[in-house]
Amino acid sequence: MSLTIRLHISTHPNFLGQPKFHQNPTKILPKYIYQTNPLRPLVQNHTKMSSISTQKTQSKRVIKSSLIDPDGGSLIDLIVPENERDLRVSEAELLPKIRLTKIDLEWVHVLSEGWASPLKGFMRENEYLQSLHFNSLRMQDGSVTNMSLPIVLAIDDKAKDDIGSSPDVALVGPGGDLVAILRSIEVYKHNKEERIARTWGTTAPGLPYAEEVITPAGNWLIGGDLEVLKEIKYNDGLDHYRISPKDLRKEFDRREADAVFAFQLRNPVHNGHALLMNDTRKRLLDMGYKNPILLLHPLGGFTKADDVPLDVRMEQHSKVLEDGILDPETTVVAIFPSPMHYAGPTEVQWHAKSRINAGANFYIVGRDPAGMGHPTEKRDLYDPDHGKKVLSMAPGLEKLNILPFRVAAYDTVAKKMSFFDPSRAKDFLFISGTKMRTFARTGENPPDGFMCPGGWQVLVNYYASLQEEETKQPATVSA
Amino acid sequence: MSLTIRLHISTHPNFLGQPKFHQNPTKILPKYIYQTNPLRPLVQNHTKMSSISTQKTQSKRVIKSSLIDPDGGSLIDLIVPENERDLRVSEAELLPKIRLTKIDLEWVHVLSEGWASPLKGFMRENEYLQSLHFNSLRMQDGSVTNMSLPIVLAIDDKAKDDIGSSPDVALVGPGGDLVAILRSIEVYKHNKEERIARTWGTTAPGLPYAEEVITPAGNWLIGGDLEVLKEIKYNDGLDHYRISPKDLRKEFDRREADAVFAFQLRNPVHNGHALLMNDTRKRLLDMGYKNPILLLHPLGGFTKADDVPLDVRMEQHSKVLEDGILDPETTVVAIFPSPMHYAGPTEVQWHAKSRINAGANFYIVGRDPAGMGHPTEKRDLYDPDHGKKVLSMAPGLEKLNILPFRVAAYDTVAKKMSFFDPSRAKDFLFISGTKMRTFARTGENPPDGFMCPGGWQVLVNYYASLQEEETKQPATVSA
Repeated sequence: MSLTIRLHISTHPNFLGQPKFHQNPTKILPKYIYQTNPLRPLVQNHTKMSSISTQKTQSKRVIKSSLIDPDGGSLIDLIVPENERDLRVSEAELLPKIRLTKIDLEWVHVLSEGWASPLKGFMRENEYLQSLHFNSLRMQDGSVTNMSLPIVLAIDDKAKDDIGSSPDVALVGPGGDLVAILRSIEVYKHNKEERIARTWGTTAPGLPYAEEVITPAGNWLIGGDLEVLKEIKYNDGLDHYRISPKDLRKEFDRREADAVFAFQLRNPVHNGHALLMNDTRKRLLDMGYKNPILLLHPLGGFTKADDVPLDVRMEQHSKVLEDGILDPETTVVAIFPSPMHYAGPTEVQWHAKSRINAGANFYIVGRDPAGMGHPTEKRDLYDPDHGKKVLSMAPGLEKLNILPFRVAAYDTVAKKMSFFDPSRAKDFLFISGTKMRTFARTGENPPDGFMCPGGWQVLVNYYASLQEEETKQPATVSA
Repeated sequence: MSLTIRLHISTHPNFLGQPKFHQNPTKILPKYIYQTNPLRPLVQNHTKMSSISTQKTQSKRVIKSSLIDPDGGSLIDLIVPENERDLRVSEAELLPKIRLTKIDLEWVHVLSEGWASPLKGFMRENEYLQSLHFNSLRMQDGSVTNMSLPIVLAIDDKAKDDIGSSPDVALVGPGGDLVAILRSIEVYKHNKEERIARTWGTTAPGLPYAEEVITPAGNWLIGGDLEVLKEIKYNDGLDHYRISPKDLRKEFDRREADAVFAFQLRNPVHNGHALLMNDTRKRLLDMGYKNPILLLHPLGGFTKADDVPLDVRMEQHSKVLEDGILDPETTVVAIFPSPMHYAGPTEVQWHAKSRINAGANFYIVGRDPAGMGHPTEKRDLYDPDHGKKVLSMAPGLEKLNILPFRVAAYDTVAKKMSFFDPSRAKDFLFISGTKMRTFARTGENPPDGFMCPGGWQVLVNYYASLQEEETKQPATVSA
């Protein structure tokens, strides 16, 4: 539990997700939706730190955490150093090209910053099979690292033919820009049925990621070592929230954290979540930690159509900090760039494992993490308790402290969110996501103390804008 | 590679699968289908050994192999010692009762003799989830043991209600006889869809084990510690071939084996298999082993309807030894009592792991092990190479030496089965199982040297008997 602060010197060209326009002054300034940016002090401080940085960087930098080691011992960084960029771009231009989808690009982002350390690129078959069958990878030294989701790139027959016998290929973004080189490639069969069955434990139609990503994809997977030509940016006004594991680790060191607890979510933060996060901090202080830091870490990649969009969620989260529901001094808000699988116990391992790489040594796990309703049957797809059970048993996650979620509900007596007390169950009101959406859509206010007013207003505005959109659509005639 | 011979003294009441009638002289003698029993010297020798045994035995005996340790360090033995049997039977009579199917009983057999060591009974949820998600179990000391198939017992709502809050239950065989006590039980949900999807990588209808065992089973699983009241016997004339892992280990020691290589099969042995087994022995001798012993280990539990039945296979195997195709001096033929899942890469791990427990330190793996055609699509269910790849990566199997299968085919020039030589591919004839069955059914002889004549005659007789059966059936009228 002793605290070691290490200063990491870096010449990373776009340090700490510094908004892109700093490098491109001619570009239009992205619209900031936040009046108060909870990360502002962090960005300023790190900008200052980066000014003392010097010299050439190596492509694979070893960055050690003071709290928890990245998987495989060192954090993977696949961004080509700036002084080699032109050379690599020239090389990429001559290679066979593979066009990435928006979601493929999210995975390139994830891989490039080392969220999936020790993975150095899209999986080859050897890694794919271990992930699919064992949810883990065996390292050369015999140690095991967790890897529950196949991180793979699919190509179709034509792309496979176009590659021919080239050992390397170039990856091109959805907009046609060169994104990366994939080296020493291996092409192998994409058995979609088996991949879906082993990842989700069902093959029922209607799994969002399977329908959006897997079913339309090609019948081949291509693995290899990835060299990403420049940092992945989205220019959506949220890039400054997309902080890499390396920079998160630095920030935790800067704040002299002696514990970092991560909270993954893809929903608005209500006061029950806040209660849980604040209570966790209290519990860590009781355990003897002096400065536990919360990593509030909303997922920023693909989500299903009826989830609240990322920009709305980020605005809502910023209100929660503005309104003082969470303390900015002990909270880091950042975007986790991964797409969402909704694969329950299999996916929760990925959510935890990737946060190890970002320096979190505590992970909060809730009821039915990464779960959803069964797509064709009237039941939850997963047993709501399996997520935390599987997480506690998962190979390669032994070093992570798992903190089970305590259930919070609206306490009609105290008129606030409280931990559920079964001895006075009738005093508690459970407000489901569906109920919350109904409130927001109808403009009805939820019970006092359910969510901070600023955050709630963000949701009301969002659902109002949706309804406006809907009324603009021509009415469909029902038969 | 040094050889240690340890003599294991045992008072096991029904030592070495000694035919049951030795204890029950009044029972009708089971019909022996083998003129020459390749195990005869083994049985005689061990009967002699058992006569010097003394004293009381403990229920959980530690049996160490000279070649490879059982999983978990000691071989599990769940048979109640004879001097405690009456007491346990009296206790079982008073407990809530669960009726076993024929296949449940095969699993009791498997568990009772320690094939699934370190498992001490049907899986509780903790073990089930680890098996389903990770194909392995983490032990208390942090080590990992392979466990790829869920070994579970399903019960229906009524059975669950009948158990009530009893901590223990009695298991009753399909014939109504008391078989075992299951202690400190845990009842949990049986999500059949998830179990099938994660075990087979498909949920397509037509998987033999799923249709026979899982779909008709209850919606609950019951786990606990198993105490088996007496050894499981089938009284089918084959019990002397059902040798426990403990007794196999003893036999390998008795023969002074310094390597044991296991060959799992559920089909008749043709000369290609024999070539492979003899060649493996040669390779082991070349590696410096002095006395490698083959464990020819046909699977004896549930198989799909169109597989050749166990009694026919055992008769065929015995002919192969009689005809000198395999050397009885360096071969042990025994029945592996497990039911067959046809779950490809997931199941091959179970086939290998259970043979570790029987003392085999080498395992021969073929093309598409435990595979079958996809039940609804015109393709193999599994990539034929995935079995050996997954086996070589599987957690907990690191200590086992995997020997990949070399492809043998009929060499039309040499007029015998030879290893396939791609430089003269046109000289080779691949005789599929379907083709072999057609030969046997039509009475046509396969090419000279495909199978020993005695073994072939067994198959011809079997298919002739099938056709007789069919002609006895009333013809169905096609629409």
